[in-house]
Amino acid sequence: MEAFSDGVLAIIITIMVLEMKVPHDSSFAALRPLLPVFLTYILSFVYLGIYWNNHHHMLHAAQHVSGAILWANLHLLFWLSLFPFVTGWMGENHFAAMPTALYGVVLLMAAVAYWILQQAIIARHGRESLLAHAVGSDLKGKLSPVLYIIAIFAAFFVPWIAGALYVLVAALWLVPDRRIERALAARKEPVS
Amino acid sequence: MEAFSDGVLAIIITIMVLEMKVPHDSSFAALRPLLPVFLTYILSFVYLGIYWNNHHHMLHAAQHVSGAILWANLHLLFWLSLFPFVTGWMGENHFAAMPTALYGVVLLMAAVAYWILQQAIIARHGRESLLAHAVGSDLKGKLSPVLYIIAIFAAFFVPWIAGALYVLVAALWLVPDRRIERALAARKEPVS
Amino acid sequence: MEAFSDGVLAIIITIMVLEMKVPHDSSFAALRPLLPVFLTYILSFVYLGIYWNNHHHMLHAAQHVSGAILWANLHLLFWLSLFPFVTGWMGENHFAAMPTALYGVVLLMAAVAYWILQQAIIARHGRESLLAHAVGSDLKGKLSPVLYIIAIFAAFFVPWIAGALYVLVAALWLVPDRRIERALAARKEPVS
Amino acid sequence: MEAFSDGVLAIIITIMVLEMKVPHDSSFAALRPLLPVFLTYILSFVYLGIYWNNHHHMLHAAQHVSGAILWANLHLLFWLSLFPFVTGWMGENHFAAMPTALYGVVLLMAAVAYWILQQAIIARHGRESLLAHAVGSDLKGKLSPVLYIIAIFAAFFVPWIAGALYVLVAALWLVPDRRIERALAARKEPVS
Repeated sequence: MEAFSDGVLAIIITIMVLEMKVPHDSSFAALRPLLPVFLTYILSFVYLGIYWNNHHHMLHAAQHVSGAILWANLHLLFWLSLFPFVTGWMGENHFAAMPTALYGVVLLMAAVAYWILQQAIIARHGRESLLAHAVGSDLKGKLSPVLYIIAIFAAFFVPWIAGALYVLVAALWLVPDRRIERALAARKEPVS
Repeated sequence: MEAFSDGVLAIIITIMVLEMKVPHDSSFAALRPLLPVFLTYILSFVYLGIYWNNHHHMLHAAQHVSGAILWANLHLLFWLSLFPFVTGWMGENHFAAMPTALYGVVLLMAAVAYWILQQAIIARHGRESLLAHAVGSDLKGKLSPVLYIIAIFAAFFVPWIAGALYVLVAALWLVPDRRIERALAARKEPVS
Repeated sequence: MEAFSDGVLAIIITIMVLEMKVPHDSSFAALRPLLPVFLTYILSFVYLGIYWNNHHHMLHAAQHVSGAILWANLHLLFWLSLFPFVTGWMGENHFAAMPTALYGVVLLMAAVAYWILQQAIIARHGRESLLAHAVGSDLKGKLSPVLYIIAIFAAFFVPWIAGALYVLVAALWLVPDRRIERALAARKEPVS
Repeated sequence: MEAFSDGVLAIIITIMVLEMKVPHDSSFAALRPLLPVFLTYILSFVYLGIYWNNHHHMLHAAQHVSGAILWANLHLLFWLSLFPFVTGWMGENHFAAMPTALYGVVLLMAAVAYWILQQAIIARHGRESLLAHAVGSDLKGKLSPVLYIIAIFAAFFVPWIAGALYVLVAALWLVPDRRIERALAARKEPVS
């Protein structure tokens, strides 16, 4: 499951670049309309990097797989697979209201899908499991959807606020999920 | 063989999204013509998820590989590789008769190819093998092609019936192939 | 090296399908101009399947890797990566002289690259190695380039002869490379 | 991390070929405008091969992974993911000043990202580690950015000098990174 998920994420992150259409003109000016697409590409690249990173840590902590986990994982990959589409649409339309809101909807649905996957893994491993402790109160996981929802509404009034919120949430998550790393390390410690 | 198949499936599932062309307009109305493409994308995503899931379980139960199995596997991947094409064609033409029928033909051929691969693996491992027992009477495997054939004919008269049948078969399979899981678990049980 | 090569081959085999552009019309007639592209797609799919199969067996027999082997492998992947391009060109132009000849040139160069890789691996493992014995006189490996060269010239006079030769060589190779399999099995036998 | 990086590199190297658009005409003349795209494709293929090769060796020498290493790695993949875009732009515009300079900028940034990743791995493993010794004075790693910067400036006056410099740096690196291989071999030697 990890190999398949890694493959899908690697492909999503790479085909996104195909939305930056090569301009026919060779002047510097020909690059200017591509700037918003490029900025959106960077943002989506960072988000997919965060998902790959945390997803990777979470699957490592999971020792058992069930049908529910498999489909929760495919559900997450489904929403992540829409990244190239919404990235291209938001970038091409220079952060217009509708595409900016839709970008937030896909971010929100991916966050919800990640949360479902996390719950499915915890349910399979028990409330006393490593992952359950590692996740803990999951402040960042609860704050992100709230910020996405605010951003979706903001997109229709002041689009740059939506953009700023997307950048803010990415910055919050940029730190890799040390909670699981720490819990894993803690499990190994009491050797003496 | 499993890594290669997983790679091909991961790529098919991801490049399918490229058939949803990014609209140039930023209005909500610009998304409306994409709705049938999006619905078809979801259906194909679920089908490929089912194939990945069951294929994965089947290859795990296979302990030996032969030339026949390798080519039966490539034959299956061939029909699955046509998913992005028929998904795009059916979606773009809003479930018109011909594309809807062709979608069913590819589903049918993939089911036949999956059956051939299953037979090749059973032939290699013997009628008494784990997989042979796990597959058993294979009701779902026999019912699906019948429903696909009905759907292909229905597509020319009442296209929505074809669509409903495709959704029905997907729903039938959405439950992962527990037969093999159960047989694998059973093999491990009689330890005492 | 095997994982990377498998990945590249999986991607080449899958993006080839993107050359079959989804027609905007929903009639059966809209599919007719795609028929030569589809036939070429099948041919290229079979060739890439053969390469994956034999490449897989050869790398399994190789126990050591050198810089020369790595670059001989990348050289092979380079020529295989041109398959989507020549497949699309030959298919779209209904087997016209020039594209049909170029298809043969890429087949020829891939065969040469495969031979170089084989020599690099044998050189690294010694004339007495398993692989050296398994390859033996390598009749098929010597016949294929000759048939490709005949096909390239034939393409300018009677294109269908070129096409028939490409199909013939594929048929010759469709049997997986049992030589190495047999040699591997033989090595394990003298246990007693 | 290695599997994910290998996947991303395999996809980048393969989708680059999609920038060579299949011509609609079947004459030999139709290929001529594709020649610069093809030459650029070869150059980029060689560069990505070099990166895959050295990256592969470096990750093998790394025994521990940290958050900093993960993000340094994603940062490198980001710049490499821009290869298809700059390859297409430089090729389509027949080595015009601006695209040729931008190609150099992406090469430069990838080299910087590689250096950062190398430093992150050395920092994690200590100045006395295998990798730190293997890298040594890193002459090639220091010379390449200088040559890229010269090439970027040269692109605006005599573009072919920029092209020649890109080819020269690739030639310098074509030899796989034997330093690490040698250090790895040295570590194993003092058995007696």
